[in-house]
Amino acid sequence: MTKRATIRTIAKEVGLAPSTVSRALNNKPGVSATTRELVKEASERLGYVPFSQARALKSSKTFTIGVIIPEMKNPFFLGFLDGVEKVLFPRGYKFIVCNSSQDPKKEKVYLQWLMEHGVEGILACPTSPHEDLSMYRKIKKYGIPVVFYDRIIPDSASEFDSVTIDNKSAVADAVFYLHKMGHRDLGICLPRLDIYTIQERLKGFYESCKLLGIPIRKEWVVDNMYIGNKGEEKLRSILKASSRPSAIIATNQIVTRQILKVIHECGFSIPDEISVVGFDDVPENELFSPPITAVKQPVLQIGKISTTLLLGRIDGEKSDIENVQLKAELVVRKSVNSMLPP
Amino acid sequence: MTKRATIRTIAKEVGLAPSTVSRALNNKPGVSATTRELVKEASERLGYVPFSQARALKSSKTFTIGVIIPEMKNPFFLGFLDGVEKVLFPRGYKFIVCNSSQDPKKEKVYLQWLMEHGVEGILACPTSPHEDLSMYRKIKKYGIPVVFYDRIIPDSASEFDSVTIDNKSAVADAVFYLHKMGHRDLGICLPRLDIYTIQERLKGFYESCKLLGIPIRKEWVVDNMYIGNKGEEKLRSILKASSRPSAIIATNQIVTRQILKVIHECGFSIPDEISVVGFDDVPENELFSPPITAVKQPVLQIGKISTTLLLGRIDGEKSDIENVQLKAELVVRKSVNSMLPP
Repeated sequence: MTKRATIRTIAKEVGLAPSTVSRALNNKPGVSATTRELVKEASERLGYVPFSQARALKSSKTFTIGVIIPEMKNPFFLGFLDGVEKVLFPRGYKFIVCNSSQDPKKEKVYLQWLMEHGVEGILACPTSPHEDLSMYRKIKKYGIPVVFYDRIIPDSASEFDSVTIDNKSAVADAVFYLHKMGHRDLGICLPRLDIYTIQERLKGFYESCKLLGIPIRKEWVVDNMYIGNKGEEKLRSILKASSRPSAIIATNQIVTRQILKVIHECGFSIPDEISVVGFDDVPENELFSPPITAVKQPVLQIGKISTTLLLGRIDGEKSDIENVQLKAELVVRKSVNSMLPP
Repeated sequence: MTKRATIRTIAKEVGLAPSTVSRALNNKPGVSATTRELVKEASERLGYVPFSQARALKSSKTFTIGVIIPEMKNPFFLGFLDGVEKVLFPRGYKFIVCNSSQDPKKEKVYLQWLMEHGVEGILACPTSPHEDLSMYRKIKKYGIPVVFYDRIIPDSASEFDSVTIDNKSAVADAVFYLHKMGHRDLGICLPRLDIYTIQERLKGFYESCKLLGIPIRKEWVVDNMYIGNKGEEKLRSILKASSRPSAIIATNQIVTRQILKVIHECGFSIPDEISVVGFDDVPENELFSPPITAVKQPVLQIGKISTTLLLGRIDGEKSDIENVQLKAELVVRKSVNSMLPP
């Protein structure tokens, strides 16, 4: 791990007295504009964090990590945090939970706070795959390891450890199963398209349909399925049309709920009139009538492995970057009808 | 807020040099057993915390609070944390989540860590109503405010702020409703009896039954309903007996799930053969067949109000102790049958 930059490091770099560097960084008088510029450039380049809190803490272990989660209401993240805690507690570590609410600006604020706070590492589920990596790079340069979990920023794979599932084959498994059961008219519902995992799950849908010769009907790909969004209305109109899909695939638990809600409202019976494959396996799936066939993510494992990786980096492990990909599993229950001739 | 005790405070108190006090506290040689005893007694009495971390942080704001939750898998706490975050974020505060796993020893370890860490306040849901209050008193004396939420330690009502629901009337409302629908044979299921909220909910059951003249059958009060525990088996035998309750009341969401599971396994139809009132209102309740009538706790509000109270104390509010009690609401859906003559 690189040593954290201090006022002294910067002073050495630019060949000035530490007191001058400090005055320049704190916008105090007695420093020329050119010097100020020079110092700020060097401090930026060296990954210096000018916060008193960070300064106070930089040499002491805080036994604290930060966890960025993108939404508090998705049960996936509760299961994930359960796994995180199981690994941290016996090691004497605790964690700060930061809910980015799917807002990259809020994510940046939290990352800044975590640095100021002196956390020893960060588990991050970034809001968007197109996110600007500079903040995460700055954190890493400052000596705080980062592990991405669930979602990654694809460009970062060679720079940051990560733990994800094979999202493409998670949905492909659902498509293969539906195909085996005789389904050829498939719809898929998504929470929103600017999320890495959702993009991958949709790719898995397209690729497996193509492989199996299942025609893709773009109008049956429903985005924005969260409560109050347009997706719900769109799904309703699809189900009410004369030609409708024989099966719908969900891409997370909140979407699964929304699909069930719309199907109930339309008065269709599952699986006789329409089949459903849920995503994320909550205990309720077993209690629905009929019990819901669903993709089960190894959520506890994602929490445990990403935390173990992070603690290794905190302890100074210098091995190659790890991009761990775990496998999801299709749990077959009774929400998919057989369309095969008897 | 009392000023935090330092080595100097203790030295003044016992009339010794600070260096002697330090040696005594750190078990270094050159101090007599009597002096050591004297110093330790004073340090205890003054609420001194001898951790380097706490020392380093005691004068600086960390903008961090600790949240003790007793179980990670209960969706109630996810909703609660959502409320906490909504209040903290705009104020620049973040939180450390500590899962006590319903173990008072683990709770104490976390409380100790939170003190060492220099949190500015603690939201705590204590594991047991019989818990030893000394740790919480020590924390308060040290100058870290504590607000109890969801559960309290009854003896502490006059010492600690708290935010709970009226647990007795939450269940009484369910009993009144069932009575109005003609039910006289009521069962109730509990996760475990050593939890404050569960004891109160059971009291609400007994008191309202008594008020309405509903005979209580002790064998229909089922404890230990968590997965793998004996309660599940007991409920199964109750349902299979020749004389069985016409309605079952749940006392939290995990218990609701377990009740539904056992009823499904027994092959009974809800509400025709048995009625159910769930506790805690999750989105899934609406999607079950039939949709489940349930007690809805104002979970987001509990999170917001307890956090607001805590931030007030952190800011130095010295008003009287607040014991806020919120009201739960019965959401009527279709899981209760009418037993009245048509």
